[in-house]
Amino acid sequence: MSSPILKKLINKFQFLPGIGEKTAQRFVHHIFSRYRRQAADLAATLLEAIEQVQHCETCRHLSETPICNICSNPDRDPQVICVVEHPANIDLIESTSFNGTYFVLHGALSPIDGISPHDLGLHNLMKRIEKGTIQEILVATSSKIEGEATAYYIHDQFSQHAKVTRLAYGIPLGGSLDYIDGQTLSRAIDCRQEMTD
Amino acid sequence: MSSPILKKLINKFQFLPGIGEKTAQRFVHHIFSRYRRQAADLAATLLEAIEQVQHCETCRHLSETPICNICSNPDRDPQVICVVEHPANIDLIESTSFNGTYFVLHGALSPIDGISPHDLGLHNLMKRIEKGTIQEILVATSSKIEGEATAYYIHDQFSQHAKVTRLAYGIPLGGSLDYIDGQTLSRAIDCRQEMTD
Repeated sequence: MSSPILKKLINKFQFLPGIGEKTAQRFVHHIFSRYRRQAADLAATLLEAIEQVQHCETCRHLSETPICNICSNPDRDPQVICVVEHPANIDLIESTSFNGTYFVLHGALSPIDGISPHDLGLHNLMKRIEKGTIQEILVATSSKIEGEATAYYIHDQFSQHAKVTRLAYGIPLGGSLDYIDGQTLSRAIDCRQEMTD
Repeated sequence: MSSPILKKLINKFQFLPGIGEKTAQRFVHHIFSRYRRQAADLAATLLEAIEQVQHCETCRHLSETPICNICSNPDRDPQVICVVEHPANIDLIESTSFNGTYFVLHGALSPIDGISPHDLGLHNLMKRIEKGTIQEILVATSSKIEGEATAYYIHDQFSQHAKVTRLAYGIPLGGSLDYIDGQTLSRAIDCRQEMTD
């Protein structure tokens, strides 16, 4: 790419996940073949979103309003809080029948990366719990070490105030035993459930 | 994604080649996890590039200046013009020892898509040729039907004025015969070259 500004643009694209130099070059060629208008639209929307999108004061989810539209929805059950690591997890849980509210950690405990309970906003979660309306905290952190550590920390801190639950581990629906790793299978056996009529 | 502006942003990302809804969602989550500054930089650079980058008046390559830095380089040989479909092709040819100049068609002849010789700027190429300094036109269009048709059209129009050549077809260097398609092999046989000492 001969133009310095196009070189710079190719460079700037590469902070996006999974985008290397080749793909960034492809984006730039695509834009300047005949998609300038769409690219200008994208840039404008990006700037607008960066300015307007903040964290919801209650749950720390991404929101354009001080309180997000899940927290401000009177049909949601405020007695159940689902704790997730990332806003993306909410999209996934919203595709289930879960009708409670959320709390977004924006990460997981990791002393090695200097991520403390305060960084995860757990003091805010405590404030919400101290108001006394919360019955259950459903911890939906990942099953990686950091996610597990965070789940145990939350259980440790909040179990006097509310019931702390964790997503069930086991065999995915439709999953064949042939493709399940040993650890998952061990958990599925440990957590086996009695069959009912 | 609950926020309307984030939904809009996810939508706007999808004009980029190979970017569907899932990847666009991933981009947006990445940006709002902790890359707002980089995203703002990207948006600003995008707008700057859209405003500044135009087509070179001589060769139609992308350029910030009226004449691109290839056309304005006195070390390049102006007697040889390499005709390419896309600016991206120039990057590739620049990695070879080719030292001529270029002409970018920004497409290929395609009556079905309404792309005429005029859309490809071939009248501009004719003007350059009429100045009389051009000895050779090396056609580097693709080997698809449109690229081939364009190559034949260029040969037809310009062969009285300059020598018109085409990139050689054959077996790629390091390519094994086992993986070559029949058509390429046929061309490689038709265009076989005598071995010299």
